[in-house]
Amino acid sequence: MTRRIIVIGAGPAGTLLSCYLARRGFQVDVYERRPDPRLLDEDESRSINLGLSARGIKALDDLGLMETLRPLVVPMRGRAIHLPGGALPFQPYGAHEGEILHSVLRRDLITTLVDHAEAQPGVRFHFGHRLVELDREAAAVRLVTGEDEEVTAAGDAVIGADGVFSRVRAHMQRGLRADFHQEFLEWGYKELTIPAADDGSPRTRLEALHVWPGEDALIVAHPNRDNSLTGTLFLPFERFDEITDPERFLAERFPDTRELMLYLAKEFAEHPVGHLVSVRTSVWHHRDRVALIGDACHAVYPFYGQGMNSALEDCTVLDRCLGDHPDDLGAAFAAYQRLRKPHTDVLDELSKQNFVELRDRLRSPLHLARKKVDLLLARLLPGRWVPLYTMVSHTTIPYGEALDRAERQDALLRGAVTAAGVALAATLALAVRRGRGGRRC
Amino acid sequence: MTRRIIVIGAGPAGTLLSCYLARRGFQVDVYERRPDPRLLDEDESRSINLGLSARGIKALDDLGLMETLRPLVVPMRGRAIHLPGGALPFQPYGAHEGEILHSVLRRDLITTLVDHAEAQPGVRFHFGHRLVELDREAAAVRLVTGEDEEVTAAGDAVIGADGVFSRVRAHMQRGLRADFHQEFLEWGYKELTIPAADDGSPRTRLEALHVWPGEDALIVAHPNRDNSLTGTLFLPFERFDEITDPERFLAERFPDTRELMLYLAKEFAEHPVGHLVSVRTSVWHHRDRVALIGDACHAVYPFYGQGMNSALEDCTVLDRCLGDHPDDLGAAFAAYQRLRKPHTDVLDELSKQNFVELRDRLRSPLHLARKKVDLLLARLLPGRWVPLYTMVSHTTIPYGEALDRAERQDALLRGAVTAAGVALAATLALAVRRGRGGRRC
Repeated sequence: MTRRIIVIGAGPAGTLLSCYLARRGFQVDVYERRPDPRLLDEDESRSINLGLSARGIKALDDLGLMETLRPLVVPMRGRAIHLPGGALPFQPYGAHEGEILHSVLRRDLITTLVDHAEAQPGVRFHFGHRLVELDREAAAVRLVTGEDEEVTAAGDAVIGADGVFSRVRAHMQRGLRADFHQEFLEWGYKELTIPAADDGSPRTRLEALHVWPGEDALIVAHPNRDNSLTGTLFLPFERFDEITDPERFLAERFPDTRELMLYLAKEFAEHPVGHLVSVRTSVWHHRDRVALIGDACHAVYPFYGQGMNSALEDCTVLDRCLGDHPDDLGAAFAAYQRLRKPHTDVLDELSKQNFVELRDRLRSPLHLARKKVDLLLARLLPGRWVPLYTMVSHTTIPYGEALDRAERQDALLRGAVTAAGVALAATLALAVRRGRGGRRC
Repeated sequence: MTRRIIVIGAGPAGTLLSCYLARRGFQVDVYERRPDPRLLDEDESRSINLGLSARGIKALDDLGLMETLRPLVVPMRGRAIHLPGGALPFQPYGAHEGEILHSVLRRDLITTLVDHAEAQPGVRFHFGHRLVELDREAAAVRLVTGEDEEVTAAGDAVIGADGVFSRVRAHMQRGLRADFHQEFLEWGYKELTIPAADDGSPRTRLEALHVWPGEDALIVAHPNRDNSLTGTLFLPFERFDEITDPERFLAERFPDTRELMLYLAKEFAEHPVGHLVSVRTSVWHHRDRVALIGDACHAVYPFYGQGMNSALEDCTVLDRCLGDHPDDLGAAFAAYQRLRKPHTDVLDELSKQNFVELRDRLRSPLHLARKKVDLLLARLLPGRWVPLYTMVSHTTIPYGEALDRAERQDALLRGAVTAAGVALAATLALAVRRGRGGRRC
């Protein structure tokens, strides 16, 4: 008998997972609160950009999806760093060809995924269905439609792919011994556009992630296919209300925004302030009945660009576990949590640290020099010296192993620097002694 | 016009707070999910013991309640530590007369508090009322009774004193940027009785908190007025199911339990396994409409004996803030969170550390010696050297200040020990040199 899985949430993770599940022969029903993204106007859909990196690409590639997506992405070959004095250093993302990121609109990614998933045998989408109740023992759900119609469904298991404020998680964990950590960054964000020039060309280098680092304001911008860029201004929450003249405020900190963000005043007034939340939790599944993927079980701040990539990678890990335990969903879910959670915990830490890097350290010449040393070593010692950023963004080495290896490399480098210092001091001391000896003679 | 406050939860914190609010002229309605504790059989009520210490006593004393309670408590003058070899060292709780704890049954405390509160003008109790909904902007609540009757109420503000899984907190924080941390200890607990002897006398020293420290099992016991003691066995969760012969299991680790815990096998089989949870959260109030006290905003593991004491102390801090802002509940609630949260965050840390102390360190001769040095210094330098445990349990110095001061004392002690070591080494070196010098002559 065909087993049936109910997926709650048709974001990137839920949709991609439905494809993987279909490949394993499951019948899949995907329920999503929002309307079909393919029917929405551009303004209604969440039009933020995402940075696809190796983990997400691998998860899409395994199902042949990257070929469809390729024409929709813009490569980002490194970071363009806007410094206060007007300098615009470029920091390549990797030491090797192909170590780049890809900017994609959430809307383009999700419609591609839904189109592909819907074409798979056994996959059905139900948009405009909001989860009201989950019976975690029966793997049964109750939902309501936009017309207040009530719908029930039951399957062999329910997968919660319903994001950081997951209702599946809340229902599943009720009364269980579940650790739960939710933190909001004290900074919020607002989207600001850098339109293309009148002749259609980009106003600044296109194939890069642009960063305006600063201690009390930070901007990051992703390129779009139409040669515009979408900027995200990060500020401490209280600042958004305090700033009466956003153009002057930004021009003082980042002079070149004046020529780039042409609609700044209007967009600052009209766009809402978004918040950033991180979630860790210790219970990712309930027996063989319910499991969570993506933001529903591990949500991170966006500063390492790994939120969606790690969610897509969840699909490959869960798929592998389903392959290892073909007849036992409970064992598959348990293995998935055991294999995956230690690494997403590490990603949480890394994402928090990278906020500090983007905000404070990108302006430091010492930090930029260290990044160059890292890339130089990576070129000199290919495969043996791999910077942390490279491992996280351009490989599928599990996050925890990447961090361990980076820490070993750091220790080696510190040792080498210390040894070099000692050798230098010894040489100097000998030279001085010889010099003195010379004088004595 | 008399202002009205709705308190949700008639535990120690909610009940004591209603007395404080009545004294400030508020009309108070207290709603509690459970039935009136005064009408319950002894077996139905939660009969656990609590250790009253200075903060709780101060909060009760300010309303003249300690006099009523005094006949219901048993003093605990220190820790009686049951070591594997049969030794039973006694560690006094303080250096000075009166630095003791008081064991009280939760039932005795709560009935005393409810009796007192009900006698205050303007205070009304509504037992058997479960909160269903809170409108945080209107300070309005919807509740249902045991007979499924629906009740609504509204006031100037709602105070959530409804414990670690507070529904007031959940309703109040919905959609707000509230950090939230919930952790479950990997150990659970079960209650075990040490009955009085046949002649009515206690089977072991009564006026002490008894501890059986151990790495894979830990027992703590509080004395009762009838010369029995109530023990709490803490074990890693999975052990509760694995142990088939609890008498042998405990006798191997703690031989004297055989003569003390006479109903061990029966109680082990019948009593449920309790869990221990800690909660920290960043949003304690919503404008002038809702605020939280006690476990609802800060729940700790029980190993420092401060959970209830800190909840009672919340009442005195909130009362003081209401006095400082007599016409502005919003300012009072904000001041209360600002003054209080940094200290309950510290208590969370201390309570986690004390689990390790009880479990692992109480068996260490070095640790016991250090405790003695602490008490000795406290006697030699009265008021100038105060051990951390004394500050937390026998004073009302805010938790954070207590920790800071203890850390300064530790640094001093380490400095003194190092200085003494250096002086000793120097003396030895001089002596050796003289000795050598002597031989040379």
